[in-house]
Amino acid sequence: MPDRVLKAMSMPLLDHRGPQFSSFAAKISADLKKLFRTQQPVMIFPSSGTGAWQAAFCNTMSPGDAVLLPEVGMFSTLWGKNARAMGLEVIEIPGDWRSGIDAGKVEEALKADSAGKIKAVLATHNETSTGVTSDIPAVRAAIDAAGHEALLFVDTISSLAATDMRHDDWGIDVTICGSQKGFMLPPGLSFTVASQKALAAVESATLPKGYFDWAPAIEAAGNGLYPYTPPVSMFYGLREAVDMLLEEGMENVFARHARLASATRAAVSAWGFENQSINAHEHSNAVTAIRMPDGVDADAFRSLVLNKFDMSLAAGLGKVAGVVFRIGHLGYQNDLTLMGALSGVEMSLGLAGIKHEKGGVDAAMQLLSEAVGA
Amino acid sequence: MPDRVLKAMSMPLLDHRGPQFSSFAAKISADLKKLFRTQQPVMIFPSSGTGAWQAAFCNTMSPGDAVLLPEVGMFSTLWGKNARAMGLEVIEIPGDWRSGIDAGKVEEALKADSAGKIKAVLATHNETSTGVTSDIPAVRAAIDAAGHEALLFVDTISSLAATDMRHDDWGIDVTICGSQKGFMLPPGLSFTVASQKALAAVESATLPKGYFDWAPAIEAAGNGLYPYTPPVSMFYGLREAVDMLLEEGMENVFARHARLASATRAAVSAWGFENQSINAHEHSNAVTAIRMPDGVDADAFRSLVLNKFDMSLAAGLGKVAGVVFRIGHLGYQNDLTLMGALSGVEMSLGLAGIKHEKGGVDAAMQLLSEAVGA
Amino acid sequence: MPDRVLKAMSMPLLDHRGPQFSSFAAKISADLKKLFRTQQPVMIFPSSGTGAWQAAFCNTMSPGDAVLLPEVGMFSTLWGKNARAMGLEVIEIPGDWRSGIDAGKVEEALKADSAGKIKAVLATHNETSTGVTSDIPAVRAAIDAAGHEALLFVDTISSLAATDMRHDDWGIDVTICGSQKGFMLPPGLSFTVASQKALAAVESATLPKGYFDWAPAIEAAGNGLYPYTPPVSMFYGLREAVDMLLEEGMENVFARHARLASATRAAVSAWGFENQSINAHEHSNAVTAIRMPDGVDADAFRSLVLNKFDMSLAAGLGKVAGVVFRIGHLGYQNDLTLMGALSGVEMSLGLAGIKHEKGGVDAAMQLLSEAVGA
Amino acid sequence: MPDRVLKAMSMPLLDHRGPQFSSFAAKISADLKKLFRTQQPVMIFPSSGTGAWQAAFCNTMSPGDAVLLPEVGMFSTLWGKNARAMGLEVIEIPGDWRSGIDAGKVEEALKADSAGKIKAVLATHNETSTGVTSDIPAVRAAIDAAGHEALLFVDTISSLAATDMRHDDWGIDVTICGSQKGFMLPPGLSFTVASQKALAAVESATLPKGYFDWAPAIEAAGNGLYPYTPPVSMFYGLREAVDMLLEEGMENVFARHARLASATRAAVSAWGFENQSINAHEHSNAVTAIRMPDGVDADAFRSLVLNKFDMSLAAGLGKVAGVVFRIGHLGYQNDLTLMGALSGVEMSLGLAGIKHEKGGVDAAMQLLSEAVGA
Repeated sequence: MPDRVLKAMSMPLLDHRGPQFSSFAAKISADLKKLFRTQQPVMIFPSSGTGAWQAAFCNTMSPGDAVLLPEVGMFSTLWGKNARAMGLEVIEIPGDWRSGIDAGKVEEALKADSAGKIKAVLATHNETSTGVTSDIPAVRAAIDAAGHEALLFVDTISSLAATDMRHDDWGIDVTICGSQKGFMLPPGLSFTVASQKALAAVESATLPKGYFDWAPAIEAAGNGLYPYTPPVSMFYGLREAVDMLLEEGMENVFARHARLASATRAAVSAWGFENQSINAHEHSNAVTAIRMPDGVDADAFRSLVLNKFDMSLAAGLGKVAGVVFRIGHLGYQNDLTLMGALSGVEMSLGLAGIKHEKGGVDAAMQLLSEAVGA
Repeated sequence: MPDRVLKAMSMPLLDHRGPQFSSFAAKISADLKKLFRTQQPVMIFPSSGTGAWQAAFCNTMSPGDAVLLPEVGMFSTLWGKNARAMGLEVIEIPGDWRSGIDAGKVEEALKADSAGKIKAVLATHNETSTGVTSDIPAVRAAIDAAGHEALLFVDTISSLAATDMRHDDWGIDVTICGSQKGFMLPPGLSFTVASQKALAAVESATLPKGYFDWAPAIEAAGNGLYPYTPPVSMFYGLREAVDMLLEEGMENVFARHARLASATRAAVSAWGFENQSINAHEHSNAVTAIRMPDGVDADAFRSLVLNKFDMSLAAGLGKVAGVVFRIGHLGYQNDLTLMGALSGVEMSLGLAGIKHEKGGVDAAMQLLSEAVGA
Repeated sequence: MPDRVLKAMSMPLLDHRGPQFSSFAAKISADLKKLFRTQQPVMIFPSSGTGAWQAAFCNTMSPGDAVLLPEVGMFSTLWGKNARAMGLEVIEIPGDWRSGIDAGKVEEALKADSAGKIKAVLATHNETSTGVTSDIPAVRAAIDAAGHEALLFVDTISSLAATDMRHDDWGIDVTICGSQKGFMLPPGLSFTVASQKALAAVESATLPKGYFDWAPAIEAAGNGLYPYTPPVSMFYGLREAVDMLLEEGMENVFARHARLASATRAAVSAWGFENQSINAHEHSNAVTAIRMPDGVDADAFRSLVLNKFDMSLAAGLGKVAGVVFRIGHLGYQNDLTLMGALSGVEMSLGLAGIKHEKGGVDAAMQLLSEAVGA
Repeated sequence: MPDRVLKAMSMPLLDHRGPQFSSFAAKISADLKKLFRTQQPVMIFPSSGTGAWQAAFCNTMSPGDAVLLPEVGMFSTLWGKNARAMGLEVIEIPGDWRSGIDAGKVEEALKADSAGKIKAVLATHNETSTGVTSDIPAVRAAIDAAGHEALLFVDTISSLAATDMRHDDWGIDVTICGSQKGFMLPPGLSFTVASQKALAAVESATLPKGYFDWAPAIEAAGNGLYPYTPPVSMFYGLREAVDMLLEEGMENVFARHARLASATRAAVSAWGFENQSINAHEHSNAVTAIRMPDGVDADAFRSLVLNKFDMSLAAGLGKVAGVVFRIGHLGYQNDLTLMGALSGVEMSLGLAGIKHEKGGVDAAMQLLSEAVGA
């Protein structure tokens, strides 16, 4: 987390029912529209991203409704689990955890649903467990091509601020995000944007909403008056984080993430390792999942890196636990912190006796030099 | 908020999936048992207290079940609203907002429920809007006397750390709390303790749980491994707050709150004002709601205090909006910060031209001197 | 210390040789001119106020030179001690520690110095140990009336930001200040303003200057380039403190201090105690020293207050150790924090069994009500 | 600065005249003895290191006394300037700014001083401007061999915590240090240790001491009662910094610095550049000064690095301004932050079109891998 954000979070707390806090909070919601590229209100819930998933179901669906879930990795799988927990039927399009959403199969599945049982397509924009980014406009086009009424839900938890994302232009119905990735904040807040079509679905939805009712959250987005006691220090951190992103400029933020991601891939390639993501146009700007050679335990390698260089690499999750390790390049990072991380990996590969080519660090420097010098 | 807590919250974040965080988090849950006086696990959700209310419903009830709600003020009313939002029937025992739960009426209502439709009694321990504390053991006795199977839910959001509260000894089935009052933290975490009987009810409950599923939260209380991304900085603050309370000693914490509350009431009495709470044994240790003379707008008075002395008094809520103002004496306060506040009120009464007797501040000093000198 | 200042001081450090820091530092020096009411550069040394005393001697005097010291209390005495340590002769005008500088005696002493041995008059603007403020323009007039060439040195360590102080208009030659009082900062920085006449004296002064050489400090005040490694975090705190004072407006800052001081004196009077300061026009806006009745140990009383109410009162120093205790009302204080303090004193007087009249707190409230209501 | 130190510095301030602060401060001085390897008290002044230089002169010398100054770089030159400002004669042994103190020449100069005019030898342990560390025991031996009474003053401002330093065992008379390097603190405190012989010299010294009087500072080192208002927040930071060093263990701290220094030199060598330090046994653990090829402006290069990679490299100073740039590896650094820095330099060399060999980063990784893997 950036120092600016940490400091902001430790400011003494404003009275959350006072006019000063409400105008402060309303201004944040207004500025969040720029990040989500929308004219719709940005709802904030004091919850993790899972809470925002659940809110989307409660507000737009009824028990027994179905959702279409293209499986792309661990987090899309958890999304399906939450849907089932809410009493929904999950129709899954199985995936290989190495590529993004297959828009053709989405279209096919929707066409097959002549009864209109499917109420939403659950699209994970960036799958954190695999480092694969899916093509959301293609999913939108698939829904349209099928002539199906299903809503398009998009989870942007690990894509926001790493790569371009446009709620309105891309025809998304529900965009879901969390505070702990691109916003460089601790976890604790979730964000939701709903289209007019999604809001219309609220009227006929019968799942109980309670805590996750969108209606007061939409009001709060407008007037800053929260129906619950808002997590004030998180709002302070959010204010600072949004300012930092807007000061850098979203185009520059995306370019920085793209550069760091390319440099990481250059290193992975040079080491002779395989990227978990197999399609070049789907490689993630936010995280790279690296497959270890057969017979090498990725978790043992991560332990060695932690032990020798005090650096935490992200673990493989679910089906790829022990198979991949992940280098995150999302959020508060720059060229030199990335080079420190890549150096740590290259040195550790040697120390661990894992067969690899030298030159990953050199390849990354080559790429960054060209990008920065351009 | 205490400086110690603010500093703790701005510490750099541990990796929440690492072993260091999990043992840190498990230790907090263990220490929380001392505050809730229980052997049961203390579940932590990243939500406001409303989320914990909802969790209790989802985990123990089914659509159409009924709850018995003794109305004691604004927050008990909101609790009923959440129950209705979850599809439950709310059987209300109307109250006057000036006294606590009438255990006799609880017994009566339960006896009348021969069909056993009522699944829980919703008891607000300290009603923040009125400054009235209810006798929870009496409610327990009433349920027992009625021979009814209903669970006893107790909201301790504004009583914990202000007054004695004992989950196990008092036979509570679900204790619910939040981070923003006695814990001296920002809002953002809720706490839940469930009895064995409440846990047994989970099996037959059919409301969808999802985000609010108790099962993984109970596991996390044991091993510190959270099913969601935990709000790490809040956990740091919680660690510090729990340490501060245990260092002072809970008996001393209660005695301090009782002393400050008595001094406040002595001032109110001397000014010739009425306490919203009418029964001496129910006066709150956490907050005192003061009724303004007829024809005096409490909110106009609060504005004057804010304007002249930069002090925020709490507003009257719901039925007593504009009628009462409230002086909080919960959390990080001592004799002299209270005297500052009471002086501000007494001076403002004069400045506002509100008819009152002088001598409130003197009466409070008299009481504190005796208590401190004892 | 205000939260704003504490936060500012914990910002990550700028490179102190970089252009960003130098323009930041130069801007602070420029803004400090507004507080010292001067067009001359404001020099900053990383030292306590004692260092600034010494700097003034080194830069303007030669071994064996004399200074005229009107004794007003403990700090003026220490100033003389520093002068002697630097090899200067100190001609003292003895004082009673209860009144300010007697301008008539200054004039007299200067007239008696026909040889012109006296190079400076050392005037303490506010004597912290006694709560007495001296009339600096009167001292200036005395020097002029004597037709003497002596420089006028004024120590404003505890007067700056509490009461009006004007380097240029009042004809001061060297104004000396420190960071730890009116600036609401930790100790660690000293401030010096020198008149053209004082700067001219540098040429003939032969005391060794070294660390305390004014010349590079004057350059640094202009360009922000410090000859030594500057205490960067102190500069951040200073920036914030200066902003806070200028935002409130110096006239408002003075009025607030005057009001709190008057309220304190009203309480002292009502208790039946004597103010160490005996002349009404010299009562300090910054601190009030209160004489205990004969036979009462002020330090024992201070211990009781600390023990019972966790409040530190300032001790009597030097000749009045054990005789007075002091209530500071300088810096980051408002009406209600003062009322908390006065309440703590009044309650403790009772607990200590010290004979006094009740009603000090009431008298202070009366005064503040009138001032705030005006 | 480490987060732990920043947090410590923003703690609310203890009353500096209270018993809690004095025992806290005395404990710090006691622990500092372990870092200076001494049984003598460690004096703390609120000043930069320059102040400690001056204090050493004032307390042990008289006007006209001479000091012997082996010139090793910019900071030794400034030391001589301070001596001259204090009215001392400076006998300089000219140096090439690329090697350390020539003990033979020290012996020679002392032998030539049959009149005993030289009162002290001023030895800079680590010269920050050149990255050269001198052999202090050799200087001690030279003084002894000459049979001269001169005191041995050692400036350890940039060597403490980077490399072994032993006040008592090495026979140092006055050790001088500052807070802003190995202590990882902001500038603002200086440290002094005096031998019995140095303390004996105080009696006959006639330079005015004032602010820099050792006597009260020695008392304060013992009882924590400071003669001036101590910079409390700096003391908090110092406490934390000393704890961090002692927790890591001084041997480990030295080993870490040695490893990072070696890796840096491996990179410099691989790039084909020259180290400003020409003798292998004198290469600094704290900083490496790198000579640019003829015709290349080191400052233009530093600007490019700042601009492209947001990294501040230290400038060449004095005679080597524009000729060298410096990589600091002192204080709060680890293998990966160093690798980030070296990568930034290597990429920038390419971007700047400066002729160099590739492979510096690889060479550094090679060295670190071997050291860490050992």
